[in-house]
Amino acid sequence: MKQTLSIIKVGSNLIEDEKGFYRILELFSKMPGNKIMVHGGGKKATEMSKKLGVETKMINGRRITDAESLDIAIMVYGGLVSKKMVAQLQAFGTNAIGMSGADANAIKAHKRPIKKVDFGYVGDVDMVNSYGIFKLLQSGFTPIFCALTHDGKGQLLNTNADTIAAELAIAMSDQFDTTLYYCFEKKGVLQDVEDENSVIQHIDTKAYDELLAYGIISDGMLPKMHNCFYALRNQVSKVCIGDVSMLEKGNSNFTTLTL
Amino acid sequence: MKQTLSIIKVGSNLIEDEKGFYRILELFSKMPGNKIMVHGGGKKATEMSKKLGVETKMINGRRITDAESLDIAIMVYGGLVSKKMVAQLQAFGTNAIGMSGADANAIKAHKRPIKKVDFGYVGDVDMVNSYGIFKLLQSGFTPIFCALTHDGKGQLLNTNADTIAAELAIAMSDQFDTTLYYCFEKKGVLQDVEDENSVIQHIDTKAYDELLAYGIISDGMLPKMHNCFYALRNQVSKVCIGDVSMLEKGNSNFTTLTL
Repeated sequence: MKQTLSIIKVGSNLIEDEKGFYRILELFSKMPGNKIMVHGGGKKATEMSKKLGVETKMINGRRITDAESLDIAIMVYGGLVSKKMVAQLQAFGTNAIGMSGADANAIKAHKRPIKKVDFGYVGDVDMVNSYGIFKLLQSGFTPIFCALTHDGKGQLLNTNADTIAAELAIAMSDQFDTTLYYCFEKKGVLQDVEDENSVIQHIDTKAYDELLAYGIISDGMLPKMHNCFYALRNQVSKVCIGDVSMLEKGNSNFTTLTL
Repeated sequence: MKQTLSIIKVGSNLIEDEKGFYRILELFSKMPGNKIMVHGGGKKATEMSKKLGVETKMINGRRITDAESLDIAIMVYGGLVSKKMVAQLQAFGTNAIGMSGADANAIKAHKRPIKKVDFGYVGDVDMVNSYGIFKLLQSGFTPIFCALTHDGKGQLLNTNADTIAAELAIAMSDQFDTTLYYCFEKKGVLQDVEDENSVIQHIDTKAYDELLAYGIISDGMLPKMHNCFYALRNQVSKVCIGDVSMLEKGNSNFTTLTL
C-alpha cells in the first residue's frame, strides 16, 4: 500500500492576520503523515509594491510580472512569508524547509510565451522533481512551497500557487496516495454563494458537469475547480475545498471532490 | 577516513555586481565533494532599507536590528539573494537549497541579552543541527545558508554570516574533514594592508600571536581571524582566507590558517 501524502494550499487571505497565521500553521502541524504546504502571499506583495512605489500592472484583470514585481514576489513569497512560516512551524514541532521551485530543483517551468499579452516573468510548469521531494519527505522534512518556479537557466518565475499545488499533487501521486486540500475563506463549494451553510459535501464528475451546466459555480471558483478535476484525472486520490477548519480532526463540513 | 566538506562564506561585496555573482557561483559549482555556502547580503539590505525609508540604526558603529530591519533582512537575505543564488546554482548543475537557520531546524540561537546595548533581533548561536544538514548533504543537496537563525519559538534572528560559517564548520567537523573558506575582497591576510601582493601564505597559532603582538592584523581583519582560530581550536581542519580566485583549482595565492 502506498504511503499517504497531504498537500495543503493555503490562500493568501488566510495568513493576513496573526491569528489566522498561527491557527493554520498549528492545524497543519497536527496533521499526521507526510505533508507539503503551498502558500501564496499576494496581498503582502501588493502592500510591499505600494511601499516601494512599484505599480501593480494589470491587463484584462490579470497581473503582469515585470522584473521589479518579480523581485518583490521573490522577497515576499520566498523570503518574508516563507521564512516566518518555517520558523513558526519549527516552534510547533514540524521540521519545515521553505522552498521555491528552484530549491532542490523541485519545479521547473518555462516563461509563458508572448501571445496577445506578455505576462512577463510568469512560469508554466513543465516538470516536478518528485524524487527530490520524496527524498526530503523520507528524511523527515516538510517542504513549504511558495509560488515561485525556475526555468533551469537561472531565471525564477512567478507561478500561480493553486497550479503549483495541483502539479505537486499529480507528480507525487506516483509514489503516494495523495490528497490535495485547497484552503480558502469559504467553507467549501457553495450551492448558494450568499449562504455559507449551503456547502456541497461531495462533487464527482457527473455533479461537476451539472453544476457547470446550471451555472452554480461562481466565476472565482471556476479555475479552482478546473485545477481540482485536472488533478483528479491525473491520479490524485481526492481533493478537498474548505476553510481552515477543514484541517481540524473530525470536521467534515467542506467539499470533497472525486472522479 | 572522513569525507571532506568545504564551507564557503561569501562576502556581501562579492555578489554586488552581476559578474561577481556569476563568477563565484560558477567556481563554487565546480568545487568537488560536499559543500555548503554561507552568504551575506548586507549591502542589498541597506539599499532596500533606503528604498523603504527605514533608517539603519547604529550604536557605536554596530548595526541594530529592530523589527523593521529584521523584516528587510528576511526579505533580502532569505528571499532575494538566496533564491537568485539557488536558481543560478541550479543552472550551473548544483542541486542547491536556500536556507535560513529555521529551515530544517538547522541553526538555533537565542536573542542576545540586553546589556549596555540592545542589539534587537540579533541571535547568538546555541546549536547547529548537524544531523539534519548531514541528511541533506547525503541526499545530494547543497545547502546555501543566509545570515538568519531562529530561536525555536517562532522568532527569526539576524546572525553574522562569518559566525554562522564558523559554527557550521565546527558542528560538521564531527562527521566531516572540514575546510572553511572566507571569501572576501582581498587576496588574503596582508603583511602590508596597502600592498595586495603581500599575502601571508600560512598562519599558525604562533604566527597569529606574533601578528597580533606586532599589530599587523588590521581592525577589520581582527574578528575574522578570531572566528578562524575559534573554528580551528574546535576541530575544523583548515581555514582559508582570500578573494574569489581562491576557489579556482590550482591557485594557492591566499592565506591558509592551521593550528
